[in-house]
Amino acid sequence: MNYQHNFNPTISDENLFNEILKEKEHIGYYNLAYQDISAFKEYAKTVKQKNIVVIGIGGSTLGTYAIYKFLKHSKTLSKQLYFLETTDPIDIRSKVEAIDLEDTLFIVISKSGTTIETVSIFKYINSLVNCDKDNTLVITESDSKLNSYANTNNIKTFEIPKDVGGRFSVFSAVGLLPLAIVGIDIDEILDGIKEVHDSFFNSKETYERLLKKARFFTEYKNSFNINVVFSYSSRLEGFNKWYIQLWGESLGKVDINDTRQGLTPIGIIGPIDQHSFLQLIVEGKRDKTVTVIKVDDFDSDLKIPHAKLDGLEDLDYIDGIKFSSLINKQADATIESINSLNDIPCDVITIDGVCEKSIAGLMYEYELLTSICAKFMYINAYDQPGVEAGKIILKKKLQK
Amino acid sequence: MNYQHNFNPTISDENLFNEILKEKEHIGYYNLAYQDISAFKEYAKTVKQKNIVVIGIGGSTLGTYAIYKFLKHSKTLSKQLYFLETTDPIDIRSKVEAIDLEDTLFIVISKSGTTIETVSIFKYINSLVNCDKDNTLVITESDSKLNSYANTNNIKTFEIPKDVGGRFSVFSAVGLLPLAIVGIDIDEILDGIKEVHDSFFNSKETYERLLKKARFFTEYKNSFNINVVFSYSSRLEGFNKWYIQLWGESLGKVDINDTRQGLTPIGIIGPIDQHSFLQLIVEGKRDKTVTVIKVDDFDSDLKIPHAKLDGLEDLDYIDGIKFSSLINKQADATIESINSLNDIPCDVITIDGVCEKSIAGLMYEYELLTSICAKFMYINAYDQPGVEAGKIILKKKLQK
Repeated sequence: MNYQHNFNPTISDENLFNEILKEKEHIGYYNLAYQDISAFKEYAKTVKQKNIVVIGIGGSTLGTYAIYKFLKHSKTLSKQLYFLETTDPIDIRSKVEAIDLEDTLFIVISKSGTTIETVSIFKYINSLVNCDKDNTLVITESDSKLNSYANTNNIKTFEIPKDVGGRFSVFSAVGLLPLAIVGIDIDEILDGIKEVHDSFFNSKETYERLLKKARFFTEYKNSFNINVVFSYSSRLEGFNKWYIQLWGESLGKVDINDTRQGLTPIGIIGPIDQHSFLQLIVEGKRDKTVTVIKVDDFDSDLKIPHAKLDGLEDLDYIDGIKFSSLINKQADATIESINSLNDIPCDVITIDGVCEKSIAGLMYEYELLTSICAKFMYINAYDQPGVEAGKIILKKKLQK
Repeated sequence: MNYQHNFNPTISDENLFNEILKEKEHIGYYNLAYQDISAFKEYAKTVKQKNIVVIGIGGSTLGTYAIYKFLKHSKTLSKQLYFLETTDPIDIRSKVEAIDLEDTLFIVISKSGTTIETVSIFKYINSLVNCDKDNTLVITESDSKLNSYANTNNIKTFEIPKDVGGRFSVFSAVGLLPLAIVGIDIDEILDGIKEVHDSFFNSKETYERLLKKARFFTEYKNSFNINVVFSYSSRLEGFNKWYIQLWGESLGKVDINDTRQGLTPIGIIGPIDQHSFLQLIVEGKRDKTVTVIKVDDFDSDLKIPHAKLDGLEDLDYIDGIKFSSLINKQADATIESINSLNDIPCDVITIDGVCEKSIAGLMYEYELLTSICAKFMYINAYDQPGVEAGKIILKKKLQK
């Protein structure tokens, strides 16, 4: 007898780890845990301006926003961080009016250096306030046109390494520099991702865990084509948005057999969306997995006071409960009600607290999970050919 | 020969219209276009406070937020509107710290009157500042416990009609009253929904259009189980959230044959998400329909200035273009690139401008579309049995 096949090479657990190790040699985000960040910290100390405005879009802003939004009310930050990312004229005007541009550092971030939104907004800002070496910083690839512009004008630049993709770039200068400038502890951020890195590559504990999850997601991708992240804290709203880009843009691809792949990310916030989207999860079609994210310690004593309200005595049982306990019990109730149905795949991630390490570890773990899923799906997680056609059409329309 | 069947009754176009007409007799939202809003306007005139804080969650806030977010930077509003909706302690604290509570009107909104989040936050606020008839307003059902509380304390109340469901309540007191108080023209809002109402029920023009769309969505629900709304304006971020609740919670149901139904809503924002989610739409699995929403007239002259940037000359073709034109060309490029693929169902809604009539008409149309889809799917759009189990589990956990 003789057997022939043109199946994809089988991916065993061991093979996959080796594939990731091979990839680690030329995909830069894996190694950002051990980069030297002293130049970022040095530069951050020199910034005098009160407002920091990041001009960028997509991968240049979403990760930074995720971390900033998570931490900003739990830390005493020395500066305010803003993002100018959309071409919506009303959005641009209202933000520009709210910021003292004379007391602002502008950080222009674009990997390619020719992102239309970013350059458009920068040109507009430059017409309101003179952007020069004293109030402008550029983060881009070393050979981009934006880099030439900065060099010509003696504007300080930091590099986005060529092997770090936009949506995987939050732990490069793209995210760390603005965060360090506003007073977030980027050593702690690195510690958070080092921990996950080591547990993934050395003890393999994180690897084994993520492998199971990724295998499930990809083996059942045709039944459960939607992955819901249900975050139980409004602080995680930025994380949800970042996750949606990472998951959607990395996994929405054509595979080596020319077959369309893709897992659709959804990010919702508890308890708000347990008053709406939960209905669809519980009674709707079984096409969703659910990952609940909880925060173990909100570091807050805010309590529901003991206060009788005539007529509302039925709700007296909530008196004296901490809000942090209430929101976590709401998460537990949601988890229990989903699990009781037995046919909705659900996992729970509990991060320690509202701190740098927790959010960084969570994000790095999601990057690793994305990379593993892409391997199982025989796709390239790091390109985005599908958005190029639109860019070409747009250019033609604008040049008319 | 003899034929028997237990199929659902066939829904012809004509039958469906009659079903909607029958439903209109006992489902209140259809008729809000012709309600008397003079009491809302009278009350709004009497409010002296500078800040308006809505305490509510889900259907009690999302619609109001959608309209407020859409309009707030295009109108000169007399007051600031805030929402306290989540039990996240850090969110509550940061919002409370930012608002002058002594100069605030609190509007407590809960249809049932016993929403845990709403009562918890109200109790907390009540411990910081005395909530009484001078600074508090209650919007609830006429026989709720919250209503009794208000009556006992001489607090002014407005009623949520029993036949208007929470997520369909934006054009009742729930939305119109806070919006009128901050200075939004609620006559214009009613005009917007009257126009759609009449075109739906009288000339049937809107009916015929929505019928086609709903029929497509439901006939292809197993191929395209995800409906993406791609809004080309940051102003529509609140609308997206409101749509997600409306669509998810109304259509995620078990039908009359005990079969799980549900169309999954996704709301994304152009141009931001054309740098990410668009990749998934274009190259990923064909499981999504796309509705692009454009704003015809942003009423803004904001322009990309003619400014040479050394090194970035390649992008000079964008000089002199209005941002409003740029964002609409970005939308057109996305539409063209999707349509060129020929296998992604896509429709485009262009609303006239950033005004009351446009947003109100759009939202009312989406309510009607939801009702029609529910008819095709043989489900009840107006209940939410799937979230009840979680509420019971939570109550048990809290009473422990």
